[in-house]
Amino acid sequence: MFALDRATELGHPTSLQELHAGGMEALIKLIAVTHAGITTEEFDALCRTWLASARHPRFGRPYPQTVYQPMLELLSVLDRNGFSCWIFSGGGTDFMRAWTADGYGLPPHRVIGSVGATEFRIGDGGPQLVKTPQLEVINDGPQKPSSIHRHVGQRPILAAGNTDGDLAMLQWTAASPYRTLQLVVHHTDGDREYAYDRDPILGSSTDEILATAAGQGWTVIDMAADWATIHPPSPPPLLP
Amino acid sequence: MFALDRATELGHPTSLQELHAGGMEALIKLIAVTHAGITTEEFDALCRTWLASARHPRFGRPYPQTVYQPMLELLSVLDRNGFSCWIFSGGGTDFMRAWTADGYGLPPHRVIGSVGATEFRIGDGGPQLVKTPQLEVINDGPQKPSSIHRHVGQRPILAAGNTDGDLAMLQWTAASPYRTLQLVVHHTDGDREYAYDRDPILGSSTDEILATAAGQGWTVIDMAADWATIHPPSPPPLLP
Repeated sequence: MFALDRATELGHPTSLQELHAGGMEALIKLIAVTHAGITTEEFDALCRTWLASARHPRFGRPYPQTVYQPMLELLSVLDRNGFSCWIFSGGGTDFMRAWTADGYGLPPHRVIGSVGATEFRIGDGGPQLVKTPQLEVINDGPQKPSSIHRHVGQRPILAAGNTDGDLAMLQWTAASPYRTLQLVVHHTDGDREYAYDRDPILGSSTDEILATAAGQGWTVIDMAADWATIHPPSPPPLLP
Repeated sequence: MFALDRATELGHPTSLQELHAGGMEALIKLIAVTHAGITTEEFDALCRTWLASARHPRFGRPYPQTVYQPMLELLSVLDRNGFSCWIFSGGGTDFMRAWTADGYGLPPHRVIGSVGATEFRIGDGGPQLVKTPQLEVINDGPQKPSSIHRHVGQRPILAAGNTDGDLAMLQWTAASPYRTLQLVVHHTDGDREYAYDRDPILGSSTDEILATAAGQGWTVIDMAADWATIHPPSPPPLLP
């Protein structure tokens, strides 16, 4: 509720309908505005507290346990074979990093999302970084190749995505002078996960990436047909 | 000459005096403006061609061989002991990465400098990133801790610098909850390198970092007294 009160004062979208219409950009802006003024350590602690208690309403498990089991297996086989794997997400970098070390086994520098500005200040707690409301990067669409160039400094040879926001990344990868692989995850499993051509939460379309995949012969993963397991097995409940 | 003609058209500093007065920021802006419109691969090739032929006027060796031997030894001992080492420079990231893999043995993602924008385009050569004249980050002063947070996602426990532009990075490191080490290189060796309190090329002052180092008890390296060797031994000349 704090977030929504603060957003109203600042003239940002406050209803779920407005947020939905604005997609990922509106959501990231809302988070940037409502969490401005706290340090990066405080923000990380807030994320971890939320992650420890929140449960996914449909799957009844913590959000970090709604990752895909086949993605974990792919990351693992690539890592064992000397690949350096990175995640380029539209989500906020600082939020992602609060759970991706446990969720994917990736160190923080290999997880890049949208970026809110931080400001160096010598405050009561000593020298610290404070989050500001300014949004520096919305890591989606044509921005993704630029973010990869900036953070990795090499063109990928394997890229995977599931919405049109990943298209430029896959196109840039496919144009590498080396042999490459492009993977497109198609959400076709309404029973175990979701079946859609437009993300029902963030509104991201999949029309362009599926059309390009068909035209270029990229590998399309049919979640219902190709994945034996969707989410990792639940950890056993803690004994009392 | 191409660079200077183009800069004149665009109203940027064109004399060495003007560049000197503007310091690192003017230099980085000049490079961004004069190299806009080429792809990231073309820029990398230009840098490598220049590096292969250019010689430092005073030391008579290629610029990548003017790195500091004690810095190479420190990077090596830290790497062997499980540290992850990164360079945060004021120089342009794309230029730095053209030589730091050979010069320091660091992969491109661990070398971060100032950042010029890139734009994803589907050009004649297929999907590519094109450099634009827009400067996104001047990686100096209070920006350095923000860049480290963005690229590494962890607060350092060891930081080294040599100008006031490194002060915020060292202060932020020193305020870590863990044990930390701060190193300040003082250019005191007019015979073998340079002796100054203000960088004669870029104009960066060292007053604040030396005063803070004295006040905080940070380790100050007296180049003339503490370094047996400044630059690495020259590679043997190629046989005819």
